[in-house]
Amino acid sequence: MRLLLGNILFSPRLGELTAIPRGALLLRDDGVLEDVLPAAPEGADAETVDYGDALILPSFVDMHLHAPQYPMLGMGMDLPLIDWLNTYTFKTEARFADEAFARRTYRRLAEELITGGTTRVCMFSSLHTDATLILMEELERAGVTGYVGKVNMDRNSGGDLNETTEESKRETLRWLDACDRFHFVKPILTPRFTPSCTDELMAWLGKLAEQRGLYVQSHLSENRGEIAWVKELHPDCAQYWETYAKYGLWKDHTVMAHCVWSDERERAAMREHGVTVAHCADSNINICSGVAPVRTLLDEGVSVTLGSDIAGGAMLAMSRVVTTSIRVSKLRCMKTDGRDGFLTVDEAFYLGTTAGHRWFGADGGFAKGKPLHAIVVDESGFPEPVRELTLRERFERCIYLMDKSAIRAVWSEGRRVAGA
Amino acid sequence: MRLLLGNILFSPRLGELTAIPRGALLLRDDGVLEDVLPAAPEGADAETVDYGDALILPSFVDMHLHAPQYPMLGMGMDLPLIDWLNTYTFKTEARFADEAFARRTYRRLAEELITGGTTRVCMFSSLHTDATLILMEELERAGVTGYVGKVNMDRNSGGDLNETTEESKRETLRWLDACDRFHFVKPILTPRFTPSCTDELMAWLGKLAEQRGLYVQSHLSENRGEIAWVKELHPDCAQYWETYAKYGLWKDHTVMAHCVWSDERERAAMREHGVTVAHCADSNINICSGVAPVRTLLDEGVSVTLGSDIAGGAMLAMSRVVTTSIRVSKLRCMKTDGRDGFLTVDEAFYLGTTAGHRWFGADGGFAKGKPLHAIVVDESGFPEPVRELTLRERFERCIYLMDKSAIRAVWSEGRRVAGA
Repeated sequence: MRLLLGNILFSPRLGELTAIPRGALLLRDDGVLEDVLPAAPEGADAETVDYGDALILPSFVDMHLHAPQYPMLGMGMDLPLIDWLNTYTFKTEARFADEAFARRTYRRLAEELITGGTTRVCMFSSLHTDATLILMEELERAGVTGYVGKVNMDRNSGGDLNETTEESKRETLRWLDACDRFHFVKPILTPRFTPSCTDELMAWLGKLAEQRGLYVQSHLSENRGEIAWVKELHPDCAQYWETYAKYGLWKDHTVMAHCVWSDERERAAMREHGVTVAHCADSNINICSGVAPVRTLLDEGVSVTLGSDIAGGAMLAMSRVVTTSIRVSKLRCMKTDGRDGFLTVDEAFYLGTTAGHRWFGADGGFAKGKPLHAIVVDESGFPEPVRELTLRERFERCIYLMDKSAIRAVWSEGRRVAGA
Repeated sequence: MRLLLGNILFSPRLGELTAIPRGALLLRDDGVLEDVLPAAPEGADAETVDYGDALILPSFVDMHLHAPQYPMLGMGMDLPLIDWLNTYTFKTEARFADEAFARRTYRRLAEELITGGTTRVCMFSSLHTDATLILMEELERAGVTGYVGKVNMDRNSGGDLNETTEESKRETLRWLDACDRFHFVKPILTPRFTPSCTDELMAWLGKLAEQRGLYVQSHLSENRGEIAWVKELHPDCAQYWETYAKYGLWKDHTVMAHCVWSDERERAAMREHGVTVAHCADSNINICSGVAPVRTLLDEGVSVTLGSDIAGGAMLAMSRVVTTSIRVSKLRCMKTDGRDGFLTVDEAFYLGTTAGHRWFGADGGFAKGKPLHAIVVDESGFPEPVRELTLRERFERCIYLMDKSAIRAVWSEGRRVAGA
């Protein structure tokens, strides 16, 4: 057994925060969390890792990001969506035909995810099978766990980034066959979005999802031009989500990024089918997509998580994505004259941690009976406060101020993967 | 003479960007910028500092921040304004009666400003004369230049943070007398805002400003409750700005923070009297004040600069304040269906650098004939791009991604004050 000691903070449910001063996390030898204790048990036969006065929080979960867009982080932010896609996105993704480039880039991405405290992801790769396998290898090597998808896109794609329907099917199968070797990184089916996939491919992917019990991720209702385009492509579907539903891709655990413009009917379809929203606040602002109705989604019982959506988003660090989500929710709050209450720091933290871990089957903040995913935050780089702060205050300050230099250690899947 | 070599980028005017690959900044021995050259002159008799392929940009100017709120950075962000003031702000500022605490805190603040690339400030202290002098000492020691104000506040202030009208006058004079010893940090008169100052004190400050040729800074039209309060206090004034104008505080170089709700008439009064706006995007969102009409202010010819406004703002690094200004302007752009065009990265960079330096009398980006204020940015921590980037692209990426670890050197008032 192993004991981790420190100030333990987590959000078990939306809007709730549990703070345990100098508490203990009891781990089994295989890294599974046995118990969360109010203090170190006396005389316990366990190796102790004492983090002193530092804060121990659940790690972050990034539920939507494009790994092959990492090289273009912070670029082209002033361009309209279509120019941004053509000038940067498609050309950048096309570069991942080069395996050596993919190896270097994905190694760096995986390291930056871990040092930033993100240990679980639901991630888009590019259409390249081999680069996708390299990405999965590098994530697993660094300690990032979760789901990665080789992207399917057999129409309306740009320049060098093309695959035929046949290639898309064949490469998807080759990729899936090669995924058995991974322990903590699993495949997820990833039609880029409806305009990128022919009906034939969508139908094939839906059947494959059913046959092999695979999860699905894609994009939904990000901006109004896209919605109109989908309507043109699928005049038989009343709404965007139905273009996924009719092929069996709209189901439990399906992750849909954005949902900025989803109306009541589309939101009800999410709730009824167990579809999870990956809210990407920074990306939605940068590309001027709109401001998602997060409060409404939560009030209606839809499952909401957060995504960095690099490189529409320009920040990989999920702590910054969390505070950006708060800021954007405050703008929506002001715009609706207070009707859509803003996300409190506890709520946004819940969305960036517990809500994501729950999608992976580990609920409640620090999930007993599941491998530990945690970060340890050291506040010594922050300004000296004028009085002793409560744990609650220290927590808020950490969420707003932490960067990788404040993250002293990272635990993923029960193992320490960064720091000491 | 001295030569600084590198890729030189600056914004001479709003919306313009000048990029000089491997150019040279020629400095006199006293640190004054003699010339900006397209290349290193051959056989020049000058000490050379070669920054290689790094980017050399003008340093940032933070035109509105509260030094004694640094200890509460990132705290109380979910509270309504009045609770935030009473729970955190006034109590935090009151702590600066303790000179040892002030010394420790202001030393750290000054260092963090410099390592973040901010070399010029227009800053609020607290009402404490001695702590204000300590602040000015620590700024000057670290290489931060600019204006600092002992705050005047003889009514409606909280708990331990009080001064009588007589104390306020006496301490202001004692403070001004003690400021002669500073070279690069100068005093600026700082009535906290209209509700905090009696008419007698405002009138006295206005006369003092005239007699001694002092600049003035304060707050204006931050939120609607405040505006209504000012109207109650000064029923004779049609608008908020007139409560400053009637006492001689509304004049050339006066800096007014926020101006979120300033209407056409108030904006015209700014333009006509040479009043400068310090736009504080992050603070305005965090405290739910509103979204300032920056595009309109610029179109109408009002002078606009940027402020971090810590600790209403939760980020001291001006690079992040610049990108936050872009993000907030995009939300306003969407809200106005595109009428208020968003700030491009070039424009926001101009506001965070050149517009501020211009207030200090140094115009044009890198101002010839003025001491150099510059930062050197090293991109080695950024992701590897898929192709060779243009200087323009590298510039944008730096603005979005830089943190202090990317800032290789900082020059202030012609001297290197950080890095190598």
